[in-house]
Amino acid sequence: MKRIIECVPNISEGRDRDKIDRIVGKLRDKSGFAVVSAEPDRDYNRTVITVIGDPEAIAAAIPDFVGEALALIDLNVHTGEHPRMGAVDVIPFVPIAGVEIEECVKIAEDVASIVSARFDVPVFLYAKAARRPERILLPDIRKGEFEGMKEKIKDPLWAPDFGRPEIHPTFGAVAIGARMPLVAFNVDLATKDEKPAKDISRYVRASSGGFQFVQAGPAYLEQRGHYQVTMNILDHLRNPIYRILETVRMEARRFRVEVTGCELVGLVPAAALVESLRYYRQPEGKKTPDDMPFADLAAEAVKRLGLRDFDQKKIIEANLPEETP
Amino acid sequence: MKRIIECVPNISEGRDRDKIDRIVGKLRDKSGFAVVSAEPDRDYNRTVITVIGDPEAIAAAIPDFVGEALALIDLNVHTGEHPRMGAVDVIPFVPIAGVEIEECVKIAEDVASIVSARFDVPVFLYAKAARRPERILLPDIRKGEFEGMKEKIKDPLWAPDFGRPEIHPTFGAVAIGARMPLVAFNVDLATKDEKPAKDISRYVRASSGGFQFVQAGPAYLEQRGHYQVTMNILDHLRNPIYRILETVRMEARRFRVEVTGCELVGLVPAAALVESLRYYRQPEGKKTPDDMPFADLAAEAVKRLGLRDFDQKKIIEANLPEETP
Repeated sequence: MKRIIECVPNISEGRDRDKIDRIVGKLRDKSGFAVVSAEPDRDYNRTVITVIGDPEAIAAAIPDFVGEALALIDLNVHTGEHPRMGAVDVIPFVPIAGVEIEECVKIAEDVASIVSARFDVPVFLYAKAARRPERILLPDIRKGEFEGMKEKIKDPLWAPDFGRPEIHPTFGAVAIGARMPLVAFNVDLATKDEKPAKDISRYVRASSGGFQFVQAGPAYLEQRGHYQVTMNILDHLRNPIYRILETVRMEARRFRVEVTGCELVGLVPAAALVESLRYYRQPEGKKTPDDMPFADLAAEAVKRLGLRDFDQKKIIEANLPEETP
Repeated sequence: MKRIIECVPNISEGRDRDKIDRIVGKLRDKSGFAVVSAEPDRDYNRTVITVIGDPEAIAAAIPDFVGEALALIDLNVHTGEHPRMGAVDVIPFVPIAGVEIEECVKIAEDVASIVSARFDVPVFLYAKAARRPERILLPDIRKGEFEGMKEKIKDPLWAPDFGRPEIHPTFGAVAIGARMPLVAFNVDLATKDEKPAKDISRYVRASSGGFQFVQAGPAYLEQRGHYQVTMNILDHLRNPIYRILETVRMEARRFRVEVTGCELVGLVPAAALVESLRYYRQPEGKKTPDDMPFADLAAEAVKRLGLRDFDQKKIIEANLPEETP
């Protein structure tokens, strides 16, 4: 199986198109991976870049990308609505296929070591790569932002995992880590009444005793005129899509509310669909191979899960360049 | 609604019938509550006593009961297979009906204060009454047992929540706390193959990402000749029985294995049944009142959940004395 990761660096520049192009350019036209998206946000003054492909190829390209951001971004003159502490603010590595989360932790550590040594930038390891519990959540690390980090980093509690306990004068500091892909999954309820969506959200989400890796809440879709249970699945291997969908369906019965469909927002790893199709196909004696063609995988997912507005373009791996070494 | 709690003190005496009778006697023939069971275990040299009834009546009787145990039990000469640190080792208060867990925390604190002051016995608050995270789990507090507690209690980290940092020379120390009732719930699978029970256990239990308050594992029933998913539900309000049953049923479908029934082991609060019956009866427009007669509640639970070996005697509140003030 092809080994694939996703990497989603965030840079603190969302207004100067030229600078953004030059920084993102360091990740374009590379062998082994592709830039899937780069969305500048003017208000945030921040750009979220998504690349997918070969783990080693991506890891090898990140330092030059960080170097370009360092050359072009000065956080002393940066303003924007999104909290930030570095010119490159955060670099998460995300396992997509044939790669375990542990490997992504290792990649994060290696990249952190190189970036810190080459640019004299302090690095915090976060999420699954965190070495201290108080560094698991990025907002905890970033609290105080660029301006506050000057002092905060001198506190032994906040000494960086790599580099000297001093921010880079223009770059600041960066968080590098590993996390599971986030699956944004919404289930449509055929009702204009909020209660079912609200109650069901409470039943399934971790914060009130439900599934450990599920965040959920009610949302009303004005255009479509019905409620949905809108969710983030933070670990699609341990809380697969089908289980969440079937639990919502089971709970909807008590309200006599029909589940009319569901949607995946953004990109989803093929593995998340394969695992869920297995649940429905296994009792029929049908195999669902890991390398099912993307078109078939998408068509079956639409049929079995009742997905709307979905096609193979929404499978992360379908966005890979055809030719990868 | 009548306010009812359960209290399950454990004493470190399981062999001397006379002593046990005298200690448990302090809880018998009281107005407002009843002793439901007192099961001595010779190997453990320990007796688990269960009383249910009015919160204030139970709380008022506990100190005399502790005094009798103090008079009759000397931990310096106690041996048994179960870990212990006190003549009365642990006293949990459990909300059953019309009482919130917070009230049980308050009762635990009040009883702790009285016991500590009257008998010069150090008290640790545990479970939901714990004031420090490392005191949530009883085994963490009790580690080292009576013998090791002499020194451990002098460590500021293990200073008791009530009383001097010194064990009572013959009694030792006691943990007093509040917790939710534990619901022991097993679902029968019509198969002699372990895999479905093992996989489904993994899907539903907290430790692998499932429901937050569920512990689960596979168990083979020799006599009956099939597997079951055997579970503890640690909070039946946030993880109701019906939701766990229906999720097991949903997962069993992928294995084409039938759920043939289920069982509740030990006693169950009426509220746990009421909540689950509501799930099944609500779509039929049927009300399920909190004060449904126990016989009806048991019969409906058997029918709707497919419970076997169940009758109203297994509802905690059905064991209350008829006359309570």
